[in-house]
Amino acid sequence: MKKLLDDPENAVDDSLTGFAAAHADLVEVHGLHGAGPVFVSRAGGAVAGKVGLVSGGGSGHEPLHAGFVGAGMLDAAVPGAVFTSPTPDQITPAIQAADGGAGVLAIVKNYTGDVLNFETAVELAEAEDVQVATVLVNDDVAVEDSLYTAGRRGVAGTVMVEKIAGAAAARGDDLAGVQAVAERVVANVRSMGVALAACTVPHVGKPSFDLGEGEIEIGIGIHGEPGRQRIAMTSASEITRLLLEPVADDLHVASGERVLLFVNGMGGTPQSELYVVYGRARALLEERGVTVARSLVGNYVTSLEMQGASITLLRLDDELEQLWDAPVHTAAMHW
Amino acid sequence: MKKLLDDPENAVDDSLTGFAAAHADLVEVHGLHGAGPVFVSRAGGAVAGKVGLVSGGGSGHEPLHAGFVGAGMLDAAVPGAVFTSPTPDQITPAIQAADGGAGVLAIVKNYTGDVLNFETAVELAEAEDVQVATVLVNDDVAVEDSLYTAGRRGVAGTVMVEKIAGAAAARGDDLAGVQAVAERVVANVRSMGVALAACTVPHVGKPSFDLGEGEIEIGIGIHGEPGRQRIAMTSASEITRLLLEPVADDLHVASGERVLLFVNGMGGTPQSELYVVYGRARALLEERGVTVARSLVGNYVTSLEMQGASITLLRLDDELEQLWDAPVHTAAMHW
Repeated sequence: MKKLLDDPENAVDDSLTGFAAAHADLVEVHGLHGAGPVFVSRAGGAVAGKVGLVSGGGSGHEPLHAGFVGAGMLDAAVPGAVFTSPTPDQITPAIQAADGGAGVLAIVKNYTGDVLNFETAVELAEAEDVQVATVLVNDDVAVEDSLYTAGRRGVAGTVMVEKIAGAAAARGDDLAGVQAVAERVVANVRSMGVALAACTVPHVGKPSFDLGEGEIEIGIGIHGEPGRQRIAMTSASEITRLLLEPVADDLHVASGERVLLFVNGMGGTPQSELYVVYGRARALLEERGVTVARSLVGNYVTSLEMQGASITLLRLDDELEQLWDAPVHTAAMHW
Repeated sequence: MKKLLDDPENAVDDSLTGFAAAHADLVEVHGLHGAGPVFVSRAGGAVAGKVGLVSGGGSGHEPLHAGFVGAGMLDAAVPGAVFTSPTPDQITPAIQAADGGAGVLAIVKNYTGDVLNFETAVELAEAEDVQVATVLVNDDVAVEDSLYTAGRRGVAGTVMVEKIAGAAAARGDDLAGVQAVAERVVANVRSMGVALAACTVPHVGKPSFDLGEGEIEIGIGIHGEPGRQRIAMTSASEITRLLLEPVADDLHVASGERVLLFVNGMGGTPQSELYVVYGRARALLEERGVTVARSLVGNYVTSLEMQGASITLLRLDDELEQLWDAPVHTAAMHW
């Protein structure tokens, strides 16, 4: 294993130390180097009167979630150990830090550990008089149940939920309103991914799974959980079709509708390849009469250095489009 | 070789097709699929009265350069084949497309092929009555001459030149003024990189060089050209020191000065590791009494899926800082 790390056991702390220093104008990182529970909050604290947004999950998916803390998106993020749910004692203070008096929406990817730990943390925060609503993201159409999940997994669609709910909170929606917008994104977003090569968790030191020389895994999870099928390596066009069709079919996207097309890199795939997939996916959507009205291409929900990509579709309407376009200022998304 | 491509021979065209579709609000891509010389220009054409900025080079370093076409940065970019200089017949029309009547600055990374082809192209453009100035970027302190270069190579510091010269052009500086600002960035920027694992050029199909299981290359070039030394894999702290010290020494950065610290990913390195390097580099600079006033961390000048990173330092003054902070709206840099 060759990684730019010192002690693999301290990988998350060491990375967050650099992140905090690089983005001190945007974030504050709490609890580093044993100083207490680790979480990331907005520099300057919660915004009074605004609904707070909190998300979190295992590390290794950067820039998710800490890279999305800032104006127009998250108020706090909770990084667990690599590919490991954060603990309630991390999540509760993050929820409290995000509360500006208007309540907090917790955005949770559907993994059993995340769900349970957020549930406990929400109870603890509510006991401290913070009003909390929760939205569960489960956009991965690849498999119904999985290694760490009952029901569908939450993957790259989480970025859409965080951005759009963040814009709703920024424009002044109340907690029920922000929750309703977030639920509407969840109802209209679907994803599926492919792995060409596995990643290596630092403290494990060997690849998370084995893929043969000429083999790829369609429907891979962002922790390397099994997908739908292993097939022989094939063309970008064919791989794109194998991802796009189940996503579009599950979303029941119809001719005349418009979508946001998001091609996400898993961490180890060159940007040039992501744009090849984007072009192929767009052509397939156009064949269906679907308009690609918004686009996002890049590494947003990664799996360390995994080689691969995922395709996400979000069905758009005027309001979701406006909220997507609204200003955002975070480390990883800024316009 | 497993890559998200169809025909490897068409990798650049296929990628640019997706790029053009995803960013039609920002760029226009000319000459795809055999329709003529390939180059990228700003959507809406040259800005009348503004100095135009053109850069280019081999593909495989995305988002450099096409990802930096837009308001506040480049007016045109010229992508060659992967790791291959663009030809004069591509560069000349790009220069012409960038000319808004106030002349064009060509920003050229110091590789012999790029230098020669830009020289020819500039002559051809001048024959068409476009006023052109050229700035050569040679920020890589690793080696004096190299596989494709006489003199130092141009690497990640190119981003600083393009951003800051772009801001000078946007505020209305004339050609001599924009050139002077660009030269000042070149005089004050230095870089050095490390490879942990090689990348594979699509139409070649095997890794560009061999690195042993426990071996890394300090001072690597962005095409895999040899660096200073191959050493046994070591800690992030030690690798950071081996990159930062030659860069800071060559720049003669002194206590009390302030710099922009840029940690660039080569394409296959997780963001979390880049932040570890950033944190270590920042600490070393602080030990020297140097203030890190601006930061950039991410994949900006890549080598396909190479695993590794580079460190760039730019000595700042008030004007360079203001120009760095000025608004920019491109596919890969937006604030």
